[in-house]
Amino acid sequence: MAGEFEFIERLRALATDPAARALRDDAALLAVDGARLVLTSDTLVEGVHFRASDPAASIGWKLAAVNLSDLSAKGADPVACLMNYALSGDAAWDAAFLEGLGAILAEYRCPLIGGDTVRMPPGASRSLTLTAIGRAGAAVPARNGARAGDALWVTGMIGNAGAGLAALRADDEANGPLVDTYQRPRPRVSEGRALAGVVSAMMDVSDGLLIDARRISEASGLAVRIDLDRIPLSAAFVAARGDDADARRFAATAGDDYELLFALPPGIEPPVPATRIGSCATGAGLTLCVEGAAVPLPPSHGWQH
Amino acid sequence: MAGEFEFIERLRALATDPAARALRDDAALLAVDGARLVLTSDTLVEGVHFRASDPAASIGWKLAAVNLSDLSAKGADPVACLMNYALSGDAAWDAAFLEGLGAILAEYRCPLIGGDTVRMPPGASRSLTLTAIGRAGAAVPARNGARAGDALWVTGMIGNAGAGLAALRADDEANGPLVDTYQRPRPRVSEGRALAGVVSAMMDVSDGLLIDARRISEASGLAVRIDLDRIPLSAAFVAARGDDADARRFAATAGDDYELLFALPPGIEPPVPATRIGSCATGAGLTLCVEGAAVPLPPSHGWQH
Repeated sequence: MAGEFEFIERLRALATDPAARALRDDAALLAVDGARLVLTSDTLVEGVHFRASDPAASIGWKLAAVNLSDLSAKGADPVACLMNYALSGDAAWDAAFLEGLGAILAEYRCPLIGGDTVRMPPGASRSLTLTAIGRAGAAVPARNGARAGDALWVTGMIGNAGAGLAALRADDEANGPLVDTYQRPRPRVSEGRALAGVVSAMMDVSDGLLIDARRISEASGLAVRIDLDRIPLSAAFVAARGDDADARRFAATAGDDYELLFALPPGIEPPVPATRIGSCATGAGLTLCVEGAAVPLPPSHGWQH
Repeated sequence: MAGEFEFIERLRALATDPAARALRDDAALLAVDGARLVLTSDTLVEGVHFRASDPAASIGWKLAAVNLSDLSAKGADPVACLMNYALSGDAAWDAAFLEGLGAILAEYRCPLIGGDTVRMPPGASRSLTLTAIGRAGAAVPARNGARAGDALWVTGMIGNAGAGLAALRADDEANGPLVDTYQRPRPRVSEGRALAGVVSAMMDVSDGLLIDARRISEASGLAVRIDLDRIPLSAAFVAARGDDADARRFAATAGDDYELLFALPPGIEPPVPATRIGSCATGAGLTLCVEGAAVPLPPSHGWQH
């Protein structure tokens, strides 16, 4: 969408403050008096970021989860959040939404301290925004710090949420662990905090492992290689979709994982459970390998928005 | 709207952190490490908070203005903001919006440091959110601090924006100072900073002078009297609508003024230009007076949303 590209360029022209990181990162880093804050804000739109048939409680959960995941990528501790809510005209939906939101905010100890509640014109799509404030640790990783020779790692399992969404598309009544991961992702806040001091680059995997790996490649000015056969798959994923190259390509491009993708200097082991899935080298571009040999990239690397 | 009331009560049950001020104020007050921050976030929805025919640049201006006005009511200095933008599918509209947003952010020295840009489904209403972060001064006024015997004051002129909107409703091509005030309100940030240390209560006038005076009355547990004949009217307002009781009732209920309404102990003069328009006493409720005698309240006190 050409208009979107131009718009982002115009936004960048406004966002010249160093805290904005040129709008090229997952979050802003703001120093105010004695505090170093990480700030992020994400909007979910019905019909774009979630399905009208998704349970309302899962949307409340996810609205906070996507923002907490951005904080986790910066190694930041959640401090508080503000929510901007468009009343849906369906009181039961709104109440269920708040139940899901309340559950994740309690679990991640991120108090709701403000925001806005608005009405929408009849028939309008739901549009929901949450802004999260985090406290930065000593190190705040960025996407652009990877170095040639670094290994690329990922926390958790890849593809569960994508397989859950595919199951729901086939059957609105689908359930089980894959659907759970799609509907209630668990951002890696404590892992992000533990990793922040040792990684050379980090981001969360929201749009798809390959597209996000490409973003690290572009931001860091390096060639990135991903070993398709090393991508960690859960037993539930393998039971649903297998573990052949097609299933692995699906996992690597499905998105909504909210795992952490990070670069570590050679010989450094991550302080949290993670899987080594690739490496960085001088050069440019993304290469996908199977048993060490390059294979064609899939036509889509993930969800571009 | 019963659903809205219930929703806000459910939100309050989540927002138990002291920083939230029970969601009963214009902004949250958050202490993080050495910083004391004021945080506010407002959403503007097409067809609800602005007209589809309003110039896009004026919507960009206003989205920041309503948030800066909330900071002004707390006596806070703008530090930075994040914006969540729904692409309209009209690149010229989006560019004009950013021009208006950029103008006010430059003037109020409030850098844009992040946010989100999303697409909306075809035909969806525009929905735009801005979150502003301010630095609190030594005192942070609230709505609930007024005391019996305090005088009520207001900065600037009341009713200009309402008269501008009425002119636009009659004629989309209307222009002049009243339309300017409606389209590009100027939040009272420096006045708020000067007032914060001396007022006993303060808020911004966004929904209408009477409804906002009633909010101070309810929050402070006091009777509030407003002298209709003291409400400050501009020459442009009087030229357009006169200055009889009807015109004054219109001004006092029209909203969108973004002036500051504040209570001062008796004998204290405000440090910025302002007009004394009423007083606080023991008791409850809002009384409207003309030449010292109570007159009936208008059926609507302003814009409830």
